[in-house]
Amino acid sequence: MKIRPLQDRVLLERVEEEKKTKGGIIIPDTAKEKPIEAKVVAVGNGAVGDDGKVRKLTVKKGDRVLFGKYSGTEVKLDAKDYIIMRESDILAILD
Amino acid sequence: MKIRPLQDRVLLERVEEEKKTKGGIIIPDTAKEKPIEAKVVAVGNGAVGDDGKVRKLTVKKGDRVLFGKYSGTEVKLDAKDYIIMRESDILAILD
Amino acid sequence: MKIRPLQDRVLLERVEEEKKTKGGIIIPDTAKEKPIEAKVVAVGNGAVGDDGKVRKLTVKKGDRVLFGKYSGTEVKLDAKDYIIMRESDILAILD
Amino acid sequence: MKIRPLQDRVLLERVEEEKKTKGGIIIPDTAKEKPIEAKVVAVGNGAVGDDGKVRKLTVKKGDRVLFGKYSGTEVKLDAKDYIIMRESDILAILD
Amino acid sequence: MKIRPLQDRVLLERVEEEKKTKGGIIIPDTAKEKPIEAKVVAVGNGAVGDDGKVRKLTVKKGDRVLFGKYSGTEVKLDAKDYIIMRESDILAILD
Amino acid sequence: MKIRPLQDRVLLERVEEEKKTKGGIIIPDTAKEKPIEAKVVAVGNGAVGDDGKVRKLTVKKGDRVLFGKYSGTEVKLDAKDYIIMRESDILAILD
Amino acid sequence: MKIRPLQDRVLLERVEEEKKTKGGIIIPDTAKEKPIEAKVVAVGNGAVGDDGKVRKLTVKKGDRVLFGKYSGTEVKLDAKDYIIMRESDILAILD
Repeated sequence: MKIRPLQDRVLLERVEEEKKTKGGIIIPDTAKEKPIEAKVVAVGNGAVGDDGKVRKLTVKKGDRVLFGKYSGTEVKLDAKDYIIMRESDILAILD
Repeated sequence: MKIRPLQDRVLLERVEEEKKTKGGIIIPDTAKEKPIEAKVVAVGNGAVGDDGKVRKLTVKKGDRVLFGKYSGTEVKLDAKDYIIMRESDILAILD
Repeated sequence: MKIRPLQDRVLLERVEEEKKTKGGIIIPDTAKEKPIEAKVVAVGNGAVGDDGKVRKLTVKKGDRVLFGKYSGTEVKLDAKDYIIMRESDILAILD
Repeated sequence: MKIRPLQDRVLLERVEEEKKTKGGIIIPDTAKEKPIEAKVVAVGNGAVGDDGKVRKLTVKKGDRVLFGKYSGTEVKLDAKDYIIMRESDILAILD
Repeated sequence: MKIRPLQDRVLLERVEEEKKTKGGIIIPDTAKEKPIEAKVVAVGNGAVGDDGKVRKLTVKKGDRVLFGKYSGTEVKLDAKDYIIMRESDILAILD
Repeated sequence: MKIRPLQDRVLLERVEEEKKTKGGIIIPDTAKEKPIEAKVVAVGNGAVGDDGKVRKLTVKKGDRVLFGKYSGTEVKLDAKDYIIMRESDILAILD
Repeated sequence: MKIRPLQDRVLLERVEEEKKTKGGIIIPDTAKEKPIEAKVVAVGNGAVGDDGKVRKLTVKKGDRVLFGKYSGTEVKLDAKDYIIMRESDILAILD
């Protein structure tokens, strides 16, 4: 089975696991979220702009990307974890 | 009786039941919502864009889709449960 | 006396009464609102879009529709209860 | 002295007084506001749309209208109470 | 010294003082704000619309206007109090 | 070293210091913020509008302006304090 | 490895470390955030405007810039700290 993201969404596979906090309420030193690295597994066909034209995505399958920790929605398929988010939530491509 | 969604809405039938939490207040580990799988039962004719033109939907009847847990509105018809949501709340199609 | 909804609003007459909660504060199991069935009694002439053109409504007098529980404003006329809401708050038509 | 509403605003004179709650904090059964009846006393010339054109109002002097309880701003002139609101806050015309 | 409001702002001089509440926390009967009367002292040249064209103001120097109690910013110049607000916050002109 | 504001931002030098509150939590009589006087030190080249055209600023170097107390961001350069804000946060020019 | 910011984002390297607060909850004297100095390391290709055209960035590699303390997302690459933000969050260029 394959996940095909809709419009301007991308399907990501996390590269590094984020450290899990164990117990207690954490008050972070800074309000800034740390981004997380991921590999692009699939991309949507692009969203329709106000002018009725489709805007193709910039990232493509195989790209390594950075995204904010609170972006996107987690998806589990065949016991594997993915994240789906809009391309606008992706911060940068790693070359 | 048939439910015909308006504009850019779709009518979904859940495939897997989400696990129900029994009692207590739950503080989730992560703020990310887990998506849920559903089958598209009916789709609207599309919403009218700013340019006055109708935008046809991408998903169609029979598609298996993923959507966020807090998206949409539950509908009961003939003792069966459905969910109605805008297509923009659908994350991906499962092929 | 007749109620003529303005622009993209519709006048609805509820078909089924929603169950009233008696006493206490209710914490619902799910954040999702249950939609309610209604009959369309009157429709507005349509709102003016950004392009200066009127967008005619899709629903018409006599349609059975579903709408979210917290949508619209209740109206009492000649001892009868109605609800006025924008067409965009209507989820689906029942055929 | 005369009150001339600006742009898409209308000046209303309430027809029925809303019932006043005496003492205590009231938790309403429903979140829905009950609309109130009023007579249109004066209307503005219309607001300028994004296309630079003035949109004339639909309601006119003398119309009986319904509006939501929390809409508009109360005005007192010559010991008489009025309400000023945007036309988009008016729900319906009573014929 | 003269205050020249920028774009779609107007400079107002209050006509009637609003009654001051002495001590205690006041829970008003109604959420509606009472408007206040003022004289227009100066007007801006108008804001630039989305189409790149300047929208001239409707109110002019000398007009008596009504505005909402919480609108605008107080300005003190040469020991005199003024209020600066956008024209869209002005409710009506008094003729 | 010189500070060159980006797009529709201006660099201001405060003319009068705002009075500092010493200790305690202050509940102001009115929600209205008092504006502050400043001199324009530098202006940006203007922001790009929706039509792709640059909108030149109205204020210019040397202008005395009024702005709201909570507007803008404080900047320290060579032991001198400045404020950077968007031109839309400037209320008026003092002639 | 190289970080390539997407669309209208820029990659920044902080010039001065902001002072860290040690222990306790701090109630600042003023709500205004102090900006921070940084060097532009890389810029995106520009975002697509409503008219479908790419808007090139104004800042370029090597520029010294000021930005608000709470802007952007921290990135760590090869043990070095960077910040990624949209160009609209950059306040000024230092010449």
